[in-house]
Amino acid sequence: MNKRTADLLFEARMLKDLNRSGYAFLGNGRESIAEHCFTMAFICWVMGRTVSGIDPEKLIAMALVHDLAEARTGDFNYVQKKYAQVDEANALAHLAGNLPFGPDIVELVAEFNAGETWEARLAKDADQLSFILELKKLKDTGASFPERWLEVIVDRLRTDTGKQMAADILETRWDGWWLNGYRE
Amino acid sequence: MNKRTADLLFEARMLKDLNRSGYAFLGNGRESIAEHCFTMAFICWVMGRTVSGIDPEKLIAMALVHDLAEARTGDFNYVQKKYAQVDEANALAHLAGNLPFGPDIVELVAEFNAGETWEARLAKDADQLSFILELKKLKDTGASFPERWLEVIVDRLRTDTGKQMAADILETRWDGWWLNGYRE
Amino acid sequence: MNKRTADLLFEARMLKDLNRSGYAFLGNGRESIAEHCFTMAFICWVMGRTVSGIDPEKLIAMALVHDLAEARTGDFNYVQKKYAQVDEANALAHLAGNLPFGPDIVELVAEFNAGETWEARLAKDADQLSFILELKKLKDTGASFPERWLEVIVDRLRTDTGKQMAADILETRWDGWWLNGYRE
Amino acid sequence: MNKRTADLLFEARMLKDLNRSGYAFLGNGRESIAEHCFTMAFICWVMGRTVSGIDPEKLIAMALVHDLAEARTGDFNYVQKKYAQVDEANALAHLAGNLPFGPDIVELVAEFNAGETWEARLAKDADQLSFILELKKLKDTGASFPERWLEVIVDRLRTDTGKQMAADILETRWDGWWLNGYRE
Amino acid sequence: MNKRTADLLFEARMLKDLNRSGYAFLGNGRESIAEHCFTMAFICWVMGRTVSGIDPEKLIAMALVHDLAEARTGDFNYVQKKYAQVDEANALAHLAGNLPFGPDIVELVAEFNAGETWEARLAKDADQLSFILELKKLKDTGASFPERWLEVIVDRLRTDTGKQMAADILETRWDGWWLNGYRE
Amino acid sequence: MNKRTADLLFEARMLKDLNRSGYAFLGNGRESIAEHCFTMAFICWVMGRTVSGIDPEKLIAMALVHDLAEARTGDFNYVQKKYAQVDEANALAHLAGNLPFGPDIVELVAEFNAGETWEARLAKDADQLSFILELKKLKDTGASFPERWLEVIVDRLRTDTGKQMAADILETRWDGWWLNGYRE
Repeated sequence: MNKRTADLLFEARMLKDLNRSGYAFLGNGRESIAEHCFTMAFICWVMGRTVSGIDPEKLIAMALVHDLAEARTGDFNYVQKKYAQVDEANALAHLAGNLPFGPDIVELVAEFNAGETWEARLAKDADQLSFILELKKLKDTGASFPERWLEVIVDRLRTDTGKQMAADILETRWDGWWLNGYRE
Repeated sequence: MNKRTADLLFEARMLKDLNRSGYAFLGNGRESIAEHCFTMAFICWVMGRTVSGIDPEKLIAMALVHDLAEARTGDFNYVQKKYAQVDEANALAHLAGNLPFGPDIVELVAEFNAGETWEARLAKDADQLSFILELKKLKDTGASFPERWLEVIVDRLRTDTGKQMAADILETRWDGWWLNGYRE
Repeated sequence: MNKRTADLLFEARMLKDLNRSGYAFLGNGRESIAEHCFTMAFICWVMGRTVSGIDPEKLIAMALVHDLAEARTGDFNYVQKKYAQVDEANALAHLAGNLPFGPDIVELVAEFNAGETWEARLAKDADQLSFILELKKLKDTGASFPERWLEVIVDRLRTDTGKQMAADILETRWDGWWLNGYRE
Repeated sequence: MNKRTADLLFEARMLKDLNRSGYAFLGNGRESIAEHCFTMAFICWVMGRTVSGIDPEKLIAMALVHDLAEARTGDFNYVQKKYAQVDEANALAHLAGNLPFGPDIVELVAEFNAGETWEARLAKDADQLSFILELKKLKDTGASFPERWLEVIVDRLRTDTGKQMAADILETRWDGWWLNGYRE
Repeated sequence: MNKRTADLLFEARMLKDLNRSGYAFLGNGRESIAEHCFTMAFICWVMGRTVSGIDPEKLIAMALVHDLAEARTGDFNYVQKKYAQVDEANALAHLAGNLPFGPDIVELVAEFNAGETWEARLAKDADQLSFILELKKLKDTGASFPERWLEVIVDRLRTDTGKQMAADILETRWDGWWLNGYRE
Repeated sequence: MNKRTADLLFEARMLKDLNRSGYAFLGNGRESIAEHCFTMAFICWVMGRTVSGIDPEKLIAMALVHDLAEARTGDFNYVQKKYAQVDEANALAHLAGNLPFGPDIVELVAEFNAGETWEARLAKDADQLSFILELKKLKDTGASFPERWLEVIVDRLRTDTGKQMAADILETRWDGWWLNGYRE
């Protein structure tokens, strides 16, 4: 352990204080980056239980670190990305500098961004599935806009596993897990 | 994949909508269970980079699932635990039922709760370290109560790794990672 | 007066800092336990004006104390009650201990829970009517889920007075009291 | 029961959606009018247990109705009262009109405002004690301004019961009821 | 510059901490008075670009000062205005007293309230247009009540410029500015 | 008027839904971009009353439009600016395109950014003064960090008017405008 690790942990906890910027544009909902990362990491863990021939630890680790740079850069939605050139590499270099396992973070994010390995492709789908869960909840509770966005997001999925999970989510009520079997 | 997996994912995302109950008693701060789980999982990932002889995937997985039952039971702080007998086993049985990997969840939580394996001991320390990070931030931004609680929480730590990380956190300003080197 | 009374008052004010747990499962709305208790107490006062042959003070007092133990136990919704065994009696014993009028609290809650006296039956209906008011507001402002829940909650009512009040509420717009007679 | 009662109940529940205006001027804290009314009503119930020779139902009822007009007029703090002439009588006349027990509301508020009967004097002290509880919590959790205001508010108390309760509150930590006896 | 100017600036910033009271009655939405004033001032600036024969600085200045007295009086919605007689003149006298440019504030508000000059008529329409923008957003994101209110508010407009802007707003989706041309 | 104007107004109102990103890093406080723009515009109006030889309309207009591009790009704090290259020019080109007065917006922002004219220098100081007001309030209500930041921000001021206003603000309590003369 070294002192720089404490800095890194505070940097990661900053993701709790930063909200994902897309919801303001949707006009409803709210989610911290940390909440998104938890949901994505959990989806990755589930994928690791059901997909064979991959490294499950790497898959989850990608979810945990993939937005870490946003503690320094902020979160950018579709519109904001048109106008802001984010130097994620530099942000990662600064947060990972002098850390014994700093290179691990840099490599994991690079592999995720490249999206070529199976783990990266699944992690990218988990990123979208996390958003699909949120849109489905908003749709089930009465918002009018998710209908349109769900199509767009589902279209981003690249793996059969991800597509199947999305199809299941869209056929499932967000409150079915406790509502089915409700009995006074 | 089967339909029950979508239920499980919605159940996990419910942790975003539930706040940890301890902060109302502290009188300040706020944190969703999902935010806590992310921070703890990230700490576990860091531990996995620096501690040898353990299964890093299991360590992280424990963090991701250890509070899953709270989607059904709610989160209980120190006071509430005195009066509420929570049947976590039953909640886990219901959420894990009919899931191919349901037994994995049940076993991971059982191992975490037993606290005997190295992974479980480290994960339990990560659980406390996540809270220490939050208290340290509240202390650094002017709250008066964390001083008292930090002692109590630090005293719960059981591994040398956890104790060293806590000591480093307590010597580090929560905003040092971006403030050091500030230059107009 | 004795010192323990100040503890009790702080314990009652904690109900302002604790939100009712059901709304997270509905996916919309928010209400502190204190807000619920005020609404229920006010409904009880109204019942006391219109129902004869009861003790109106006792009826209101039940509303004020019926959730007091939740300062120590937390609030449990339908799902959480399946998994948590709450020792309300012990919580009440602790908060009422050494208080000159402590036994009054214990007895009022016991009578309420038993639901046998007229006051207890009316108070229990007031508890549901408070929720019906909230669901009706959510319905009138566009939420989709109250329709389903209103049936369930109305079905819990046990007194003619409660049933009549529910019927009137369901026929009344939540904003009718100021909107009728609106004139530019 | 008549239809106007449902209007009245929706009017009372509006107090949940309106925040007390003083906290913006203090720069910290938040409280809905409904939360204030619950706390005050509970204090009145406690007073009714310990003071003899008064009508305890009337005392509590005053707390429940004393701010009812604010659903129509809004809540006015010290500064706002300098500039706004509020026609509470007219607001009460409108909300109580055509209600069988409407005159009860009007009379209770009039008696409270006059502050001459014992019940009214105690209820007025309960109104201040509710604020003292809030300021004491803010003080105990680190805010700097309550010190000054507590003196001002305590000075408004008019009954020995109220003064004794205030003295006890000021000597009691807001979290003492659960913190004393804390033991890992 | 004199010391009283700092008081005035703190008084203006208080409009950030005060929410417009109408949204509680609508049952949805939220807006600080400062946010309203910004939107209205921006609309006035736009009007100044497109309408000839007026003093554009005066038009914008009216927007900036028209609600300044609300820092002392609070914001009153339709219902509250029926019961509260607000002495805006006195509030303005107090905030503008001893300020070199205090009379400018008083005169601008008086001209705005009189609604006779072109600048005042346009500023009054900008006040309504700011609300129309908010209602249109709420309508586009699924709320059910704006339909009714939009008619009422549009009917308050007095200038051709204001009526044309309202018609354009009502034909435009609130998210059209970024959504049109969306392309993955 | 043309249809594009409605798009522009919705774009400006988006500043109400976007919070300034600096407060998450300070660990306290909250402010929408629209609230910041109002405060800054009001300060500019005050400057226009007290500084001679400038164009007061231009000064205020700069405040109203200077952050308009942030509806598309988001708001960047000190840390985020290190890593994100924001193409404000492109964002302005898109929002101003096809608007009759679009070039006015582009020119005003360019003049503001260049900071060479008197109006631009004053507007830049008003931008900082708006933040100083907020930090002073946070300091007066008990936060520990503003002390450090106030020095940094004051050091950014470039005009005698701005420096004098800052000095007056720092000597004035945030609640002095209503607290002085408080009398029960």
